[in-house]
Amino acid sequence: MEKIEFRPEREQFNYTFGGAKPLFKVRPGTIMELWSEDAFNYALQTPADLSSQKVDLRYVNPQTGPFYVEGAEPGDTLVLHFISMKPARDWGVSAVMPFFGGLTSTDRTATLQDPLEDTTWIYHINRSKNTLEYDARFSEFKVDLPIEPMLGTVGVAPGASEVRTSLVPERFGGNMDTPEMRPGVTCFLGVNVEGALFSLGDGHYRQGEGEACGTAVEGAMTTTLIVELIKGNAPLWPRIESDDQLMVVGSSRPMEDSWRIAQVEMVHWFQELFELHHMDAYQLLSQISKAPIANVVDANYSVVVKVAKNLLPRVSIYNDIHNELRAIASKLGI
Amino acid sequence: MEKIEFRPEREQFNYTFGGAKPLFKVRPGTIMELWSEDAFNYALQTPADLSSQKVDLRYVNPQTGPFYVEGAEPGDTLVLHFISMKPARDWGVSAVMPFFGGLTSTDRTATLQDPLEDTTWIYHINRSKNTLEYDARFSEFKVDLPIEPMLGTVGVAPGASEVRTSLVPERFGGNMDTPEMRPGVTCFLGVNVEGALFSLGDGHYRQGEGEACGTAVEGAMTTTLIVELIKGNAPLWPRIESDDQLMVVGSSRPMEDSWRIAQVEMVHWFQELFELHHMDAYQLLSQISKAPIANVVDANYSVVVKVAKNLLPRVSIYNDIHNELRAIASKLGI
Amino acid sequence: MEKIEFRPEREQFNYTFGGAKPLFKVRPGTIMELWSEDAFNYALQTPADLSSQKVDLRYVNPQTGPFYVEGAEPGDTLVLHFISMKPARDWGVSAVMPFFGGLTSTDRTATLQDPLEDTTWIYHINRSKNTLEYDARFSEFKVDLPIEPMLGTVGVAPGASEVRTSLVPERFGGNMDTPEMRPGVTCFLGVNVEGALFSLGDGHYRQGEGEACGTAVEGAMTTTLIVELIKGNAPLWPRIESDDQLMVVGSSRPMEDSWRIAQVEMVHWFQELFELHHMDAYQLLSQISKAPIANVVDANYSVVVKVAKNLLPRVSIYNDIHNELRAIASKLGI
Amino acid sequence: MEKIEFRPEREQFNYTFGGAKPLFKVRPGTIMELWSEDAFNYALQTPADLSSQKVDLRYVNPQTGPFYVEGAEPGDTLVLHFISMKPARDWGVSAVMPFFGGLTSTDRTATLQDPLEDTTWIYHINRSKNTLEYDARFSEFKVDLPIEPMLGTVGVAPGASEVRTSLVPERFGGNMDTPEMRPGVTCFLGVNVEGALFSLGDGHYRQGEGEACGTAVEGAMTTTLIVELIKGNAPLWPRIESDDQLMVVGSSRPMEDSWRIAQVEMVHWFQELFELHHMDAYQLLSQISKAPIANVVDANYSVVVKVAKNLLPRVSIYNDIHNELRAIASKLGI
Repeated sequence: MEKIEFRPEREQFNYTFGGAKPLFKVRPGTIMELWSEDAFNYALQTPADLSSQKVDLRYVNPQTGPFYVEGAEPGDTLVLHFISMKPARDWGVSAVMPFFGGLTSTDRTATLQDPLEDTTWIYHINRSKNTLEYDARFSEFKVDLPIEPMLGTVGVAPGASEVRTSLVPERFGGNMDTPEMRPGVTCFLGVNVEGALFSLGDGHYRQGEGEACGTAVEGAMTTTLIVELIKGNAPLWPRIESDDQLMVVGSSRPMEDSWRIAQVEMVHWFQELFELHHMDAYQLLSQISKAPIANVVDANYSVVVKVAKNLLPRVSIYNDIHNELRAIASKLGI
Repeated sequence: MEKIEFRPEREQFNYTFGGAKPLFKVRPGTIMELWSEDAFNYALQTPADLSSQKVDLRYVNPQTGPFYVEGAEPGDTLVLHFISMKPARDWGVSAVMPFFGGLTSTDRTATLQDPLEDTTWIYHINRSKNTLEYDARFSEFKVDLPIEPMLGTVGVAPGASEVRTSLVPERFGGNMDTPEMRPGVTCFLGVNVEGALFSLGDGHYRQGEGEACGTAVEGAMTTTLIVELIKGNAPLWPRIESDDQLMVVGSSRPMEDSWRIAQVEMVHWFQELFELHHMDAYQLLSQISKAPIANVVDANYSVVVKVAKNLLPRVSIYNDIHNELRAIASKLGI
Repeated sequence: MEKIEFRPEREQFNYTFGGAKPLFKVRPGTIMELWSEDAFNYALQTPADLSSQKVDLRYVNPQTGPFYVEGAEPGDTLVLHFISMKPARDWGVSAVMPFFGGLTSTDRTATLQDPLEDTTWIYHINRSKNTLEYDARFSEFKVDLPIEPMLGTVGVAPGASEVRTSLVPERFGGNMDTPEMRPGVTCFLGVNVEGALFSLGDGHYRQGEGEACGTAVEGAMTTTLIVELIKGNAPLWPRIESDDQLMVVGSSRPMEDSWRIAQVEMVHWFQELFELHHMDAYQLLSQISKAPIANVVDANYSVVVKVAKNLLPRVSIYNDIHNELRAIASKLGI
Repeated sequence: MEKIEFRPEREQFNYTFGGAKPLFKVRPGTIMELWSEDAFNYALQTPADLSSQKVDLRYVNPQTGPFYVEGAEPGDTLVLHFISMKPARDWGVSAVMPFFGGLTSTDRTATLQDPLEDTTWIYHINRSKNTLEYDARFSEFKVDLPIEPMLGTVGVAPGASEVRTSLVPERFGGNMDTPEMRPGVTCFLGVNVEGALFSLGDGHYRQGEGEACGTAVEGAMTTTLIVELIKGNAPLWPRIESDDQLMVVGSSRPMEDSWRIAQVEMVHWFQELFELHHMDAYQLLSQISKAPIANVVDANYSVVVKVAKNLLPRVSIYNDIHNELRAIASKLGI
């Protein structure tokens, strides 16, 4: 199999989905090893670096991509199988930025209150223990947390000729900020434009559900993935398959609408997979869905609806491509 | 220890939190074995029983209680440790009721569309396998699902002289409909009136997160619990402790507000437990909280914020009452 | 016609809808002159009186009532025709209370930010000009504003045995806080319990739409009204008729749901009034409805949907009771 | 003064804000007479034309523009003074499109219900009476409604390199769908890109507040306006001035956030105009703002906050440019 290793130069980063020229073309079946910069664009390196002083809001959440997938046409399904995500630095960083996050007023949930205190936390990696050290800024409290790498942002160019900033999660994927986007999963995205034009970035060394303060433990990441393509069958919203779960990500506002989107999409998926009437799929899912919140902090809020495969009869999902890619990946020894 | 077994007569059920006279008094430390009727009030017994014909909306979600806890005063913390929840019938039932549920318009999210088809599903229990049989109504599909009993509704009388129907989740608990309210957990509720006046009901043989169609696998339940009381320290919103998790349940609308409530309450809890500055608690929780949705179908939507204890330093929580009650329960052999 | 004048003693005020014993009975056709205390319960009398120090949150929004309307049964329509509302003091008062209002985080839209500065404004009345003097607290700016009296709170006992605080707007009316509840209008409320048990209060000497800071120019008020009763025909949500408008008030969260409720109720009203198909009523109203926000600050948000009568064919509304009461009132010379 | 008359060819229409090349350049001070197509792109011409069959969703809400304003740079304020809007056809059209509108589930507020019946209404213009004839589709009801022309869509290219469909209202203006965008008003938009790149379209012969069914009385329009430019002072959100009102339009979801945006922006405007402390501006506006809903049907919901100028001291607003343009327009005799 073809393998491409790529680390963008600073001027090659893009900050939108859609609107940017592809960096290069890749053939379905290609293995890619992609380096991505942290969401702050390397502007915060110590606790003394404050977001209000150092972060240039025009250049946040830099994306590695877009890449043109050969043969991808609108209506097709882009398949991204994530083999591994490895922290590319020895530290990660999180910050409470003024008027950004879930427990503060924002430019949308606008109030007249003062912002929370602009604060930065640096998390040092302990490679031998595979942990991050959380260091309180206002007391002596410390605790080691497991590294659980994931990508905040994975997406394709939007439809309807739109161009969206990389801060937005939507039908095209984007800044979904769900811990489910981790090594070992396969992500299915509907293709909107020729070549699909996918990008990724926003590596998180770990993140809680909700991403409460607006930023995870942000860090440069080396992601290895296999790019595949299924002709047709574009899902309306991003789907994810892991070894044991089927997932859909809905993104909108208010958050009940994000959930409705994901739950309805899962009903439709179940109708296809098990030839169920929509009322029967609705009922069955009411008793077996999980619904973890992804983020409540981005331009849209994201909710995941997921179902454990072991509750269900064995059935072929996208022609078993997840299992197939999983097998390929395991032989690569990455 | 004192043990009380109680199965209400039909006319003893209550349909509100607050406003009802206590059935009797219990002393802190009492073990109670309580029988609760299903949320449809036994009106749906076969798939031919339709909610629009059989369910009397004035008498849904019957509660077993209220009980007056001796010594409980406003500002105290009622502690309910759930030892076991056992299906009291051999079948459970779920229904899509017209204009009720998450994937339909409702009296609140009002539209001009027709309702979904009024449909009832009966789930038969297989005691030896500990499963429920899901039977599709519109095709031949069947699947066995594990029984995972929980209570949809646990609460005390509200403050401010309010009386609320048992369909509402709020600060006083109530119809939170979270799968986290299961055997082995301890629930902490702020007391608003003398005697606390707690009730429970709405047994679910299992439920997905979100309770998408509006009803779980509803069934009569035998719940064994220990009632305890902590003087003072009333939490603002319901808290739950399990062997491995700390949890808060927030209930409001829109759903981002439910999450905000629960996440802020968890920040405050962390400030107390670890003497953290609120900014440090906010940051730490951003990286370790889980945020499963409880329901998107009740008068208020409920979201759980939870944290794995094993990520944190060992600390005494409510004076270790959960561990203590767990130990007592394990000796009872229930 | 019978006329009752009533000013409650301090201990006669009630703070809920439902749950309180009626003060006395009134016959349909009675004229009532009712005195109501201001929403702060007379606790703020100078700019130096701060809400955090002086306001007892258990005793805010005192209601004058409830009154038992003879013959009123569930399903009937209570008719309240407001003849006049007159400021009962020479000054009104408004305050920004910590974590209360529309441009601050609240107990629902919870954040970790500090509250806005607790501030009180006193508005002195100029009777000859019929104005209120707005006096800036942080600069020398002054401006005279017209007195436009209205009632923030009008309601009946809720259904389903509920008791709600007087801060809540809902189907039963309550704290709708709309400037449309002014002299000259007729309010129609569905009766939920025997005697209807209506109350009113929360006089505003004027209020903007949205009631942004959470409080209007609050003041004691003398309200003169005629109480009438229509057997049956209970509207689902409060309706208001003025000489030139038909109105419905919806109250829920998020605010789009408040609007949906009011707009759907108006569609149903139009179906009745003009024998229109719901699609035709939907279409017509899309082109002629007005939709002023009432408040975005209470436990539920309220939105008014209204239609100018002069755009429509002449039709009998509730048997022309508004016109009839208007005529009676004009003869009274109040 | 220079005057440009322009009617686009079909292939010149654009369907986005941002992303399209300017049609031509205009100098500040230019009078433009612009022809715009209806929002359905002329696809619905009789009641028998159904949106599901005739409307191509890739080509709805066609915009006339964009136009490059000479000298406009990011941070500047584009000023559009609307002199007149004249129906360019003898009929307008409205439709209930499947899963589009305020009283139906949508792709966001997703449910499993069937769509409302796809229906089209044609409104014939009576020029002598200046009315539109509403004709019920399901009964014989007819009524004449005044023509009150307005533009649903006015905007500039967004910031952050985004491109948005013309269905979206946002900071850049766009599909705000407010009846306040009518002849005689001046609209102020913050410039995000060189040349501002403004467009307009979506003429409505009349529209109710909320635009309940999702479409107004849509029609081709001839709009005459004066284009002006103020260096700097870009407002964060669209502002509108009429002879008697100051207005801000906020657009987001849920609808309380749209209101918060507009109300906060008005607080800031009042701070500038009257040198008020933000607490004093908040208080004053709480008593004098009006808050009519614009639409609850677009990708974002829009709310207007407005204030009557006659309640306030006389003050110069944008250097009195509205009055100046009004005077110029009146001399033109359009």
